[in-house]
Order: sequence, then structure tokens, then C-alpha cells
Amino acid sequence: MTDRLSAPVSADELERRLRQIGAERYHNLHPFHKLLHGGHLTRGQVQAWALNRYYYQSRIPMKDAALIARADDAELRRVWRQRLVDHDGEKAGEGGIARWLALTDGLGLERAYVVSTRGILPATRHAVDAYVRFVAEKTLLEAVASSLTEIFSPQIISERVAGMLANYDFVSEETLAYFKARLSQAPRDADYALDYVKRHAISARRQQAALDALVFKCDLLWAQLDALYHAYVAPGHIPPGAFAPEPGG
Amino acid sequence: MTDRLSAPVSADELERRLRQIGAERYHNLHPFHKLLHGGHLTRGQVQAWALNRYYYQSRIPMKDAALIARADDAELRRVWRQRLVDHDGEKAGEGGIARWLALTDGLGLERAYVVSTRGILPATRHAVDAYVRFVAEKTLLEAVASSLTEIFSPQIISERVAGMLANYDFVSEETLAYFKARLSQAPRDADYALDYVKRHAISARRQQAALDALVFKCDLLWAQLDALYHAYVAPGHIPPGAFAPEPGG
Repeated sequence: MTDRLSAPVSADELERRLRQIGAERYHNLHPFHKLLHGGHLTRGQVQAWALNRYYYQSRIPMKDAALIARADDAELRRVWRQRLVDHDGEKAGEGGIARWLALTDGLGLERAYVVSTRGILPATRHAVDAYVRFVAEKTLLEAVASSLTEIFSPQIISERVAGMLANYDFVSEETLAYFKARLSQAPRDADYALDYVKRHAISARRQQAALDALVFKCDLLWAQLDALYHAYVAPGHIPPGAFAPEPGG
Repeated sequence: MTDRLSAPVSADELERRLRQIGAERYHNLHPFHKLLHGGHLTRGQVQAWALNRYYYQSRIPMKDAALIARADDAELRRVWRQRLVDHDGEKAGEGGIARWLALTDGLGLERAYVVSTRGILPATRHAVDAYVRFVAEKTLLEAVASSLTEIFSPQIISERVAGMLANYDFVSEETLAYFKARLSQAPRDADYALDYVKRHAISARRQQAALDALVFKCDLLWAQLDALYHAYVAPGHIPPGAFAPEPGG
């Protein structure tokens, strides 16, 4: 980490520092991610990942609506609205959440169980809820900045799709359709958000707040993989009530 | 007003009671509304109405996004999202807010002044902000129920457009385009919201909450016209800092 800002930096230097946060803290560096891509997880462990990540997906449109609710700039609202379309679709069965459910279907999880979110880890719920609250309660700039992990997501998605297709016979291009859509959506969203942050973070205090918001977001993505690792990899202590893979699953 | 519910009523009886609230409390009954339609206001008084109402319009997409942010039902989010499209448009210069600005333009108000909301009555701000907070903080059912004034709006809009076109040479069909769009949007929105309330308000307590929410909404629309009447009709006490029509305007 670099020192905290005491004087404003240029927009380009701010972008460099934002990207540096991703290089140091984005969850593609997490051991669980490497296991997932490398084909080192069982079907049950991949199920646990997809099940928990569903809760994150399901809250994203609510998070984005919370941001729109705070924007008195119609342009920002219009641009951000596309995220609602991407996640909820134009009709039932479309959009990112439906595509995520195609993945959990493909992994053999019962849909009603997934949607109930009964089996997720408490730490998943805490992290995701913390994100939604952050966006609803912090400054609009911090809310926008917390979305900037999308700058880094095309790389992780490419690794994930290639690695999972190569290594698991229980996933297919069809079940991974979610990620394909995100490859074009995320850069478009990230470009706008990064430009917004560079234009609006003009004091040292606001620049630092934007950097901190991105750290907060990276940390909550990381914490979700920590919890999955602890519960399902090593030592494998599944909390009471949480999803338990079938033996040999 | 009917007595408070101690036992649940049928969905049809709930609808009857909701409609009864409109028949008794909707702001088409307000004296200011009658003056506006009847051609009894000066251009300056119509300007004051449009200027204040702009603040209401400008907050509506934020109110609707606050509702979407609380909906864990993707179907509700998708349907409600159309309201964001209607108000913010697909691009700059489109949508309900832009059409409202066409009205204030047509009335000769400077756009930057309108958008700044500097000249609105404090009571307008209080009422509108109370509405946005209500939707953000009350139950989702109450948030949806508070939108049900749209059941009554086609009537007021028809009266308003006909009356204003007939009576004021400073308005035209073009400047009243906002209302024409709402004539088709409002019934579609109201049908969905009414059906939602009838399906979800199944206990006496929830039915009463829905009825109270609609009363709350009618009251805040009414309060805005009270404030306009007091400031610009009689006794005509314009608060410090609020918009003052030009002499003879």
C-alpha cells in the first residue's frame, strides 16, 4: 500500500493507484480462486462456491438501485440503470441472475434451495450485506468507486472460464454463460465508473475516499473466498446449517 | 374515513377502500387545482406551480430506485424499472423530467434556475423529501401502496390539460407533452401496483398499512398545493428566498 494522500494527485496518478489496489488485493490472487481455476476442487466445492456467490449476484441489482436512488444526476442514473437490465433481464429467465442460476442448475443444485439462500455461509451474507449498506450509506463517489473491481474482472473471468472448462467435466460453455456476458458488460461499466471517479475525486480527501472504497470492495470479495476456503477446503469446518456437499460430491 | 381494520377484508373491499381514499383526499379536490384548470391563475402563479412541481418530478426516479433497492423479487424490480426509463428517458433530453422542463421552458422560466431548485417553497422540499424517505424506510408494501395515487391521476391530467389549453394562451399542447405521456404510463403502473398491494396485503395490519400509505401520499400532494396557495394565491405570503413572479407576470 502507498501512503495516504495529503495532497491531490493527477487523475492519471489516481487511476494508477486504483489499478495498483487491484494488482495487490483483487480476489484473483486468492488461493481458492487458484484451486477453482486449476481444476483442484471437487464438484461439491464448486457447488459451495456457486451457491454462496448466488447471494452476491442476487443483491447486486439492489445495490445498484441503492446507488441510483442517491444520484440526483439523471445521466448517472441512466447509465447505471443498464446494470439493472443486465442483472434482472428484460423478462423472467433473462439477465445475469438467471444465468447464474443456470450455472447452479448445471452443477446439480436444487434451484429452490439456491434461491432461498438458506445454505450460504454467514460470512457470505455479512460481506454482501456490508457492500449493499456501504453503497447506500457512503458518499456517491465512494459508492461508484466501490464498483471499480470491474476493471479487473475480465482477467479473472477469462482465467475462470478457460480453467473450469478445461478441468471440470461437470461444467460446460452453456452453464458458464454468465461470465461470457460479463466480459462485455464489465469493461463498459468500469470505463464509465472510472471516468466518473477521476472527474469527481478532485481533492485529496475525496481521492483517498475513492481508493479506500476500492480497498473495502476488494476486501469483501476476498473475505468471501476466505470463508469458502475455511469451510470447504481446509480445515473444512462447515458452519452449522450451511451447505454440505454430498459424500464424494 | 372508515374505521381502522380489525379483521382482514377481501381484496375487492381493500380496492374499494383505496379508491375511496382518492375520492376523498386526492389533490384534484384542492382549490389550487381548480384555479389552475379553470384559467384563474396568472402566468406567474402557473410558473410557481411548475417550478415547485419540478422538484417533485426530479426526485421521482430516486424514489423509485429506492423502492427497487429494497425489492428482492426480480419481477418487481423489472416492472418498477420501467418507471426509471419513463422519467429519465433513454438519453439526455428524453423522459418525464425533460418533458417537465419543456413545460417550465414554455412558461418562460430559466432552466438553470428551475434545475437548481433554489426558488421552491420549503414546504415543497419537506413534502417531497418525506415521500422519498417513506419509500426508503417503510415496508415494501407501504412503498408500493404510496404509488397508488396513479389510480386517480388520469382524471386530474385530463382535466388539467383541457383546462389549461382552453384557458391560458401561454401553454400549448407541446409544453404539456409531459401529461400526455403520463396518460398511458400511469394506468399501466397503477394496475401493477394495485394488483401487488391486493396480493400482498392479506392481514388486517398490512391492509391498514397500505391504506395509511395512500393517505400519507395524498396528504403530501395536498400539502404542496396548500403551500402554493398560501404563497401565491391568498394571502400571497411568499417565503423569503422563494420564487417571486414578475410584477404583472
